[in-house]
Amino acid sequence: MRDVFVAGIGITSFTRLEYPLVEIAAYPGLMAMRESGIKTIDQLYVANMGGCRVNHQTGLASAVVDNLSLTPAAADSIENGPASGASAIKQGFMAVASGVCDVVMVIGAERMREVNNLEATDFVATLTHPMAEYIYGVTLPSLAGMFARLYMDKYGITSRHLAMVAVKNHKHAMDNFYAHLHEEVTLEGILDSPDATTNNPIIADPLRFYDMCPVSDGGACLILTTADIAKKTGKPMVRLAGVGQATDTHAVHDRKDPTDLMAVREAAKRSFAMAGLKPKDVNVAELHDAFTILEIVESEEVGFFEKGQGHIALQEGYTKIGGKLPINPSGGLKAKGHPVGATGVGQAHEIVLQLRGEAGKRQVKNAKVGFTCNFGGFGNNVVCLTFVREG
Amino acid sequence: MRDVFVAGIGITSFTRLEYPLVEIAAYPGLMAMRESGIKTIDQLYVANMGGCRVNHQTGLASAVVDNLSLTPAAADSIENGPASGASAIKQGFMAVASGVCDVVMVIGAERMREVNNLEATDFVATLTHPMAEYIYGVTLPSLAGMFARLYMDKYGITSRHLAMVAVKNHKHAMDNFYAHLHEEVTLEGILDSPDATTNNPIIADPLRFYDMCPVSDGGACLILTTADIAKKTGKPMVRLAGVGQATDTHAVHDRKDPTDLMAVREAAKRSFAMAGLKPKDVNVAELHDAFTILEIVESEEVGFFEKGQGHIALQEGYTKIGGKLPINPSGGLKAKGHPVGATGVGQAHEIVLQLRGEAGKRQVKNAKVGFTCNFGGFGNNVVCLTFVREG
Repeated sequence: MRDVFVAGIGITSFTRLEYPLVEIAAYPGLMAMRESGIKTIDQLYVANMGGCRVNHQTGLASAVVDNLSLTPAAADSIENGPASGASAIKQGFMAVASGVCDVVMVIGAERMREVNNLEATDFVATLTHPMAEYIYGVTLPSLAGMFARLYMDKYGITSRHLAMVAVKNHKHAMDNFYAHLHEEVTLEGILDSPDATTNNPIIADPLRFYDMCPVSDGGACLILTTADIAKKTGKPMVRLAGVGQATDTHAVHDRKDPTDLMAVREAAKRSFAMAGLKPKDVNVAELHDAFTILEIVESEEVGFFEKGQGHIALQEGYTKIGGKLPINPSGGLKAKGHPVGATGVGQAHEIVLQLRGEAGKRQVKNAKVGFTCNFGGFGNNVVCLTFVREG
Repeated sequence: MRDVFVAGIGITSFTRLEYPLVEIAAYPGLMAMRESGIKTIDQLYVANMGGCRVNHQTGLASAVVDNLSLTPAAADSIENGPASGASAIKQGFMAVASGVCDVVMVIGAERMREVNNLEATDFVATLTHPMAEYIYGVTLPSLAGMFARLYMDKYGITSRHLAMVAVKNHKHAMDNFYAHLHEEVTLEGILDSPDATTNNPIIADPLRFYDMCPVSDGGACLILTTADIAKKTGKPMVRLAGVGQATDTHAVHDRKDPTDLMAVREAAKRSFAMAGLKPKDVNVAELHDAFTILEIVESEEVGFFEKGQGHIALQEGYTKIGGKLPINPSGGLKAKGHPVGATGVGQAHEIVLQLRGEAGKRQVKNAKVGFTCNFGGFGNNVVCLTFVREG
């Protein structure tokens, strides 16, 4: 297998975007081409979840490759729910590693603004099991609520800990120009004040409004290539060193212990094994905090902390910028935003910025090893990536 | 790069199926596991186009990997319109060739029976360009009609030649248990008889009812692996020797000559180059005859015949079973059926059967080299595969 490097990156704001899905996807591709000087590619992958239903658009990769004048390059769309982005990066990794392609552009894009919140919730519920979950009215927020209750009871986590994730990630996002939410929040404001029940109502008990990510539009891009081609860009060399993916039962109720996120554990293990690294080697991570509880649980399952210790590390400031292992310096899904198919590519974009030392005010000092966890379904399909700054 | 072999295959009937999309996808996977004796996989790819919109199902690969009890294997869904199937096979090829995976299951599946013909046509029109085509009312059948008229005028092709494709492929399908249409048709019946205008009405001038494929449900599977593992199955060794893909302008009206299917030509060239073979080496082919005109044009663009000579070869019986180069012995999309995301895997399934010598009454004698052309959008994204029987 050949080594695989990141040659260029690009991103749109994660927010409500006016322009069509094809252009949301194409724009970060153009940014990555400008940055890297790369003008031809062998393959494009586009990660997207809802184009067919929400935007009347299939064959999205074909549309984008033409929009960027990159025909006759090969082009395919990849779908793995909210983990589509990291899945597309994995395909790009294999295309370069195998020698089939020298230059692969990976884009993630989603445009949700066509639909209202109810439709968005039903659309995302296409990820649930039709016979074991959806038919009984289960949606992703309700699954997350039930999961959070069980996890909190088991490990002594309180609503205060969940709110601390929101406070930290909203603060991180203040320094991210591309983040959806630029709104600093405090424990007082969203939990303790008399207005909190109005400002931060319960959505899926025990989860409140500020425990949930926004519905965002957005796109992000990574260009993957060989060492030789990456060197020519003159940018710091960031290697995609580990790619790990694992699946679990499609329905949460089929798991022996519903608080056990086996696929997160296994995907991280596989990613670290390929990279020849361990969780303790990681300097900066982007975890999939679509719901605040998930950041805490993933920080344990990927191996950063012991089971039941994630909320303690959070409380002690270990995971904020300036702490020993900053998590979600971008603002995470919580505050940077969650344009579903784009999210995994957005996570990787942040890690590449951090490893290059180009993250500005939110830069994590001396970051050499970065890690992402992209979480599909309710933990039924998880992809973890490990990036290493070389030289 | 490692060599890649087909270890097992499976298929459902291409017809109207009662069971849910997840099970349409899983069943051919089970058949391929049974046939090959393979019980664990590293990766599943599922090709599907309409799950999100038509079946309220995303994360299809996650659902299928669980349905087949193959967790925690990695699983991703691939979409490239009607060429999704061959795109998924390409991903499987790279996964094994790169050494990331030893065993990859590739499934294609679609379930269209939820929607009526009007909805189906609008769903497939998600493949068109939103600003240059769809907004003006263009659909896939109307594009095909306009294309056919231009092509017929340019090369002296008549409606009789188009009907000959239908007659040939309907006849081939009579010996295919899994085909959608078991209905032998004649030039007399669909063209010359006084009833022809009723039996075979014009749908998108000059294309008539029998120039178009049916709307089918169905699934198909290929297991791809290394030479060592394939040998253990005891089946004849079929190697996936060439994978070629190319894109063209998304909108047909952006092409200098709308009768020129550049992406077909380029994808075929790339596939043959990787395999180290030429069009004249091919003994049997499955081409993408969603509309009869396409079989004729593709037979030229992939290099079997000179431009403008495809209809002559057809007329002379060159492309029927028993002819020098049988095309669509399965019945093709025209009569075997066209469950969109499954079609490319179904084409490969037929070629593997033919190269193994397991195609029964429709066996092409001494078939050593087989070829498939899977056509996405209206020729904006095409994938060609070359298979070789070894030993």
